[in-house]
Amino acid sequence: MSQILDVNMEIAGNRCRLSQRAGRTCDQPISFLMQQAVANPDMISLAAGLADQSCLPVEVFRNTLRPLLDDSDRARIALQYGTTQGDMRLRRLLVKHLEHLEGIPACEMALEAERMVVTTGSQQALQLVGDALIDPGDIVLVGAPDYFVYLGTLETLGAEIVGVAMDEEGMLVDALEDTFSELQRKGDLPRVKMVYCDSYYQNPTGVTLHESRRPAILDTVKRWSREGKIYLLEDAAYRELCYEGSCPRSIRSYDDDSTVILAQSFSKSLSPGLKLGYVVLPPELVDPVVGLKGNHDFGSSNLSQQILAQMLESGAVVEHAAELRQAYQRKQMAMLNALGENMPNLPIPSRWVRPTGGLYVWLCFPEGIDTTRSGPLYRECLNQGVLYVPGEFCFPPEGNQWVDHPLGCAQNTLRLTFGALPEDRVEQGVQRLAAAVRGCCT
Amino acid sequence: MSQILDVNMEIAGNRCRLSQRAGRTCDQPISFLMQQAVANPDMISLAAGLADQSCLPVEVFRNTLRPLLDDSDRARIALQYGTTQGDMRLRRLLVKHLEHLEGIPACEMALEAERMVVTTGSQQALQLVGDALIDPGDIVLVGAPDYFVYLGTLETLGAEIVGVAMDEEGMLVDALEDTFSELQRKGDLPRVKMVYCDSYYQNPTGVTLHESRRPAILDTVKRWSREGKIYLLEDAAYRELCYEGSCPRSIRSYDDDSTVILAQSFSKSLSPGLKLGYVVLPPELVDPVVGLKGNHDFGSSNLSQQILAQMLESGAVVEHAAELRQAYQRKQMAMLNALGENMPNLPIPSRWVRPTGGLYVWLCFPEGIDTTRSGPLYRECLNQGVLYVPGEFCFPPEGNQWVDHPLGCAQNTLRLTFGALPEDRVEQGVQRLAAAVRGCCT
Repeated sequence: MSQILDVNMEIAGNRCRLSQRAGRTCDQPISFLMQQAVANPDMISLAAGLADQSCLPVEVFRNTLRPLLDDSDRARIALQYGTTQGDMRLRRLLVKHLEHLEGIPACEMALEAERMVVTTGSQQALQLVGDALIDPGDIVLVGAPDYFVYLGTLETLGAEIVGVAMDEEGMLVDALEDTFSELQRKGDLPRVKMVYCDSYYQNPTGVTLHESRRPAILDTVKRWSREGKIYLLEDAAYRELCYEGSCPRSIRSYDDDSTVILAQSFSKSLSPGLKLGYVVLPPELVDPVVGLKGNHDFGSSNLSQQILAQMLESGAVVEHAAELRQAYQRKQMAMLNALGENMPNLPIPSRWVRPTGGLYVWLCFPEGIDTTRSGPLYRECLNQGVLYVPGEFCFPPEGNQWVDHPLGCAQNTLRLTFGALPEDRVEQGVQRLAAAVRGCCT
Repeated sequence: MSQILDVNMEIAGNRCRLSQRAGRTCDQPISFLMQQAVANPDMISLAAGLADQSCLPVEVFRNTLRPLLDDSDRARIALQYGTTQGDMRLRRLLVKHLEHLEGIPACEMALEAERMVVTTGSQQALQLVGDALIDPGDIVLVGAPDYFVYLGTLETLGAEIVGVAMDEEGMLVDALEDTFSELQRKGDLPRVKMVYCDSYYQNPTGVTLHESRRPAILDTVKRWSREGKIYLLEDAAYRELCYEGSCPRSIRSYDDDSTVILAQSFSKSLSPGLKLGYVVLPPELVDPVVGLKGNHDFGSSNLSQQILAQMLESGAVVEHAAELRQAYQRKQMAMLNALGENMPNLPIPSRWVRPTGGLYVWLCFPEGIDTTRSGPLYRECLNQGVLYVPGEFCFPPEGNQWVDHPLGCAQNTLRLTFGALPEDRVEQGVQRLAAAVRGCCT
């Protein structure tokens, strides 16, 4: 998929010896995609998951920062060190925020500020949890497909990644059960440490885990947690980008506080520039995660934390997310409409999942179409001036076993996003993609 | 020194299995010290290395943020994602800033924005470099004593830490040579990956590596870099806090761009709240470090980066550091004067290194006085209402071998800081410390 670093590079006659971890670290595919976009300014990137430039909370930010600047005492707090675990006032506001999202009192969910760690985006939360649990050779179950940045992180940690089949309603409970059975049969169950589940408008498929599956997935993980505890890492980064229907409760809200690790972010619902996320941990994982974060940075930007606390307290976060949902919904409609207009007329059929939130649409082609980075469709898309994320980045290794699965396999799927583009560019991008598919069929 | 986590905790009848790394992660001693300070509000903490509250750049911050807020385009850049390696405009300004500090044109030092990575404080830079180079069992040479947070980070990485003797002018070149010889004799040279050197007003001793030793230390590392490349990680976090005399060039400035990794921070010279540092890397380490940072957070707070870029461009960073130096110098004088007035009258002798910058003073007692956390002096200091950092935290394991060394050993040394306190509290703190020493002698 991407270049693995040589851990024993010869530099000027001297052997540079990288760590095993560095050796397992791939060049993130997203860097490659960004280079492509930079190299061709007319390129329409349906690949980059950036936030919409026009939807960034400039006014909210002004209204929040002015009073913070005018009050010297508060400005000093923002400019001083914070703590490794994160500002206590912010963590208390995060409890309230989660209470509001779940619609359940915090006390009924054992939701406490003491269980939270504020992180540099939810990516840091995911990395820290992996670092605290995974040794090389340990097994992590993920969706097939799943969030490619975290797949790369798990590879760096040395995890063996095992995919679990999904459909339009998320991870299949039976498939998870079968995967566990199969691992037990092979004697591999003791190596399973974690199940990773991106539960809302999943990156890359846009699929949300159905409400009815949430307690069932949790129950399955708990039942197989026999030869050592297996955690369920719930990534809810896109949770607040719900455009249609009701947004289900988190898997965490069904837990008795023992199994689910819940990671959330403000990069999608507020501003990526603040770079803040948080994680709610079972009690025994708080010290290990805070200990590792002490090594990494002993605390995320306190300035960002003070700004976020202010925005949560004033209600600006919830208000801004409501506006953002309207803007993103229009763009999602533009993409779905453009797909509906352009794709059915092509010589080969395609299908896509209709998401009710988030930033992504997942497109599946029949076996004949090769969507990989080295395949003809990708090349033709570059010619036409449009970029997508090849599905191959999003599947666990051996991604081809997913042929005939509801969400396709590594060779013939792709991810589209409408996040950063205005509606007319979204439409134009889909037209270019359709032209590229047509070009590949002639 | 501190609690090692049990990697196989039994939680409700189920075995929670932490990673080996989490198992090697100690509770940072600083957490313990902060708890002590919180538990007793009248406590004078000569332990915490916080920035002076009254010296935080509130005005500079106001003047920088107002135009950034008023310009919607610039505000949007600050609120959007940045890149993993860090904002290019900021990295170019960092090149100029370093050029100014070194007094040497960037082109003569192979100093380029492409070699830099912007990090969440310099701690993240130190951690990422360690992560890219160190496997469990690899050897890292450090000063004896040295920066305890990084000693903890190295332990988490599984490094074997070997101390090198220091005196008032920093790491001893002969001692470094002897350490390498001894490692070679034992067949351990191939496991040596890195020498860590905190080269300016070192934490914890306040000692600056003498100008004449800089090329010599570098030359020694290069000469022993035979059976695989050995890097020199130069930590220059306190570099801009120079109060007396001239501030030497970095070790990096003597390098032919192959051996030194230079880490710097704005937490000490500007504001810890921005939480930004940076690292200059030899060419072959850029991809590995950026790759790992992609896993950790794919970029530090872009908002902080845009603010810092603005402050660098306007000259505010250099101006603020000049004011800060005056304020800290007065406090350092207050501490040195208080030590001069209070310590010589005690029943037992003590000596301290007179630093010319930074935030720390290192105090050495004769063998009879036990400064450890479980010893009588620490207890008596708690009674008197004053906190220090026991020297034991700052020495590599087997810290007792440093008895009779110029900077003392783990059992009878301590670190004092005047960073966050007003002058009268610094004086009062030293008086309480003297009273505690007297109390231990009766």
